[in-house]
Amino acid sequence: MSRFYEKTSTSPVNIAVIKYWGKRDTTLILPTNSSLSVTLSQENLQSKTTIRASPDFKKTRLWLNGIEEIDIDNNKRLQNCLRETRYLRKEYENKLIKEGVKTVIPLSEYNVHICSENNFPTAAGLASSASGFACLVYTLAQLYELPVSTTELSKIARQGSGSACRSLFGGFVAWELGSQNDGSDSQAIQIAPKNHWPELEALICIVSDAKKGVSSTEGMQNTVATSPLLQHRIEQVVPERMKSITEAILNRDFQKFAEITMRDSNQFHAVCLDTYPPIFYLNDVSRAIIRVITEYNSSNEFKKLKAAYTFDAGPNAVIYTLRENVPEIINLIAKYFPGNVKNDKDYFSDPDQLFAGNKVGENPLPQGFNSQIIPIFPPGSVKQILNTRIGDGPQALNGEKDGMLNEEGLPKRLL
Amino acid sequence: MSRFYEKTSTSPVNIAVIKYWGKRDTTLILPTNSSLSVTLSQENLQSKTTIRASPDFKKTRLWLNGIEEIDIDNNKRLQNCLRETRYLRKEYENKLIKEGVKTVIPLSEYNVHICSENNFPTAAGLASSASGFACLVYTLAQLYELPVSTTELSKIARQGSGSACRSLFGGFVAWELGSQNDGSDSQAIQIAPKNHWPELEALICIVSDAKKGVSSTEGMQNTVATSPLLQHRIEQVVPERMKSITEAILNRDFQKFAEITMRDSNQFHAVCLDTYPPIFYLNDVSRAIIRVITEYNSSNEFKKLKAAYTFDAGPNAVIYTLRENVPEIINLIAKYFPGNVKNDKDYFSDPDQLFAGNKVGENPLPQGFNSQIIPIFPPGSVKQILNTRIGDGPQALNGEKDGMLNEEGLPKRLL
Repeated sequence: MSRFYEKTSTSPVNIAVIKYWGKRDTTLILPTNSSLSVTLSQENLQSKTTIRASPDFKKTRLWLNGIEEIDIDNNKRLQNCLRETRYLRKEYENKLIKEGVKTVIPLSEYNVHICSENNFPTAAGLASSASGFACLVYTLAQLYELPVSTTELSKIARQGSGSACRSLFGGFVAWELGSQNDGSDSQAIQIAPKNHWPELEALICIVSDAKKGVSSTEGMQNTVATSPLLQHRIEQVVPERMKSITEAILNRDFQKFAEITMRDSNQFHAVCLDTYPPIFYLNDVSRAIIRVITEYNSSNEFKKLKAAYTFDAGPNAVIYTLRENVPEIINLIAKYFPGNVKNDKDYFSDPDQLFAGNKVGENPLPQGFNSQIIPIFPPGSVKQILNTRIGDGPQALNGEKDGMLNEEGLPKRLL
Repeated sequence: MSRFYEKTSTSPVNIAVIKYWGKRDTTLILPTNSSLSVTLSQENLQSKTTIRASPDFKKTRLWLNGIEEIDIDNNKRLQNCLRETRYLRKEYENKLIKEGVKTVIPLSEYNVHICSENNFPTAAGLASSASGFACLVYTLAQLYELPVSTTELSKIARQGSGSACRSLFGGFVAWELGSQNDGSDSQAIQIAPKNHWPELEALICIVSDAKKGVSSTEGMQNTVATSPLLQHRIEQVVPERMKSITEAILNRDFQKFAEITMRDSNQFHAVCLDTYPPIFYLNDVSRAIIRVITEYNSSNEFKKLKAAYTFDAGPNAVIYTLRENVPEIINLIAKYFPGNVKNDKDYFSDPDQLFAGNKVGENPLPQGFNSQIIPIFPPGSVKQILNTRIGDGPQALNGEKDGMLNEEGLPKRLL
């Protein structure tokens, strides 16, 4: 290739504790309520994207996990992000030219090749569109050297996938609803960085499901159209919860954080159920995990909330807890939802460290825990537990080593 | 025995289409919203109660399904019904005496023996408290010859079990919320008698469940205390739905009736889920039945609603439909949720009539029905289907033949 310009970066997944569900504008992706999330460590879950711009590219192309997306012209969400970043690039080029800079490269006019991969299986049902679109926009901003703030970029990522705007920051991130019709104030801001609350961890329980649920894009607009309860949630419930959970985070108040997190997960699934026809994401395993966590919280000596579950648009549980409780909770989950694997390491990444030689799930139950609360589920009902921490926002990688495109501008790894 | 006075009667089960969930007064059992139900035929589901009063009885005693309830003094709900009916009896006795009647029997002062049975297994998880308390109060009113209206009686039955007030009428019955603090206007009224809509039938799908859910008495007050969405339901949603479904019933408009019924079942389970900690009554089988009915309604040629599901505080589905659709629906349910029994008759009472020799569940799916909508469930996930009709209110039986107490005033049949 003659000339090309390329950047590679990575972006994290985020898991909301105040849930986003419903758009007031489906084109600009403006939500009906504010939301708040925790960004998870990229060690376990991340999207990685390489974008190359070149005057030699005949068209813009996209590969997702090694498979080319055809008909990207009709991928409106992708086009939104490309259009907005190119527009800013063009402005920037004009500004530089005006300032007398001689060597302004007209990147805004070049086609790009985009190669994006996740380090976790899409089949796991973990929202990959948030990390994916955050990575797309962040990498474009790097490539175009855009002189804009992360919050500014979040408004672009939002137009790719709503919750992607929150993946542009690490730590604790709010997506402010905004009030403008053009979306100019519907943006992400960081509430606190990852090192603000280092004891907070997340356990992701991957739950098997026979049936793929309704997509969140489709589901949420059915809720907006048909749920009488959603309006009340939007107007009366969420604003108060946003305030309270922000305080809880700033004060590292796990009791308050946990209660609001569980209540908001419950309410999100409640408005799904109030949709006509109803939308279900929780299955019997999800509900049993809720029962276990509820018993765990109510049976301990001081009746302290020691764990908080939250569920997105699928049956997987994310359990937020403080580091000291992690071994106890993994043991609990493993006891009631044993893995269907020969090796404990395939069920939980680091069993030895936690259980000092005992098999996962074979440590005794916590004192006072009512063992009859649910039956023991068939092996494999929970496929895997991922233990992860709070993480950083997108990271720029450098050089050829990390780039995922070869000399011809095609993915090095194709499926 | 020297002298005794005895009555026996039967009462029906009712299944709400606008759900009762929440009390504003737990002693008087005053609800937070009005509700509306369909009374089911006593052919399949009924409570039967014999009550005998005698000056020889040393104390008041109660047998439920052949087992004596001890400590009935602390059964407040029972005592409510006894106290209120005795009070009315006493008033009536005083009135008769005042009028110069010579032979007034002081029944209000006698102890009673109460023997009550259901013709359906309590284990099936069908609300038996409604039919049971309706039968108690109706039989007491017969015994005491109370000169009061059924609506008047409904206010007493309400103090035994809220939804029991609706079982005092046949057909379509509203329980009006009322506004008085003493409960004097929280009562049942008949919207239409059973013969108003003879084509309407109900299919009760008995669903296995590993875990008994929270009792409705306890559950509903947790919802009142903790669900932010319940208040909105009470104030904004139910009043409108009560009006609309009453109209739908009066016009025999199945489309409207079905939609409101399904929406209200969904919303009841939504506020259960919005409770903290959440309450679950639907399990994976219940949710799969909802999917089947939703597909059945949306896939038929005219996109007509042909069936409406509703779920009470348990996993059993009640499907309302018009008679013409019954074979198709039973075939559908039997296909996806085959019975775990040798004989089709143990799964569905009258298979031959419907399937002309074919085994239940082996007729083809309705045209246009997407067979992939759910997997086929393990045999026994639905244990039984009961096909029933709209029924009458309580019935007085006559004479010794039907009485369930023997000469000594003890149950003829004891467990």
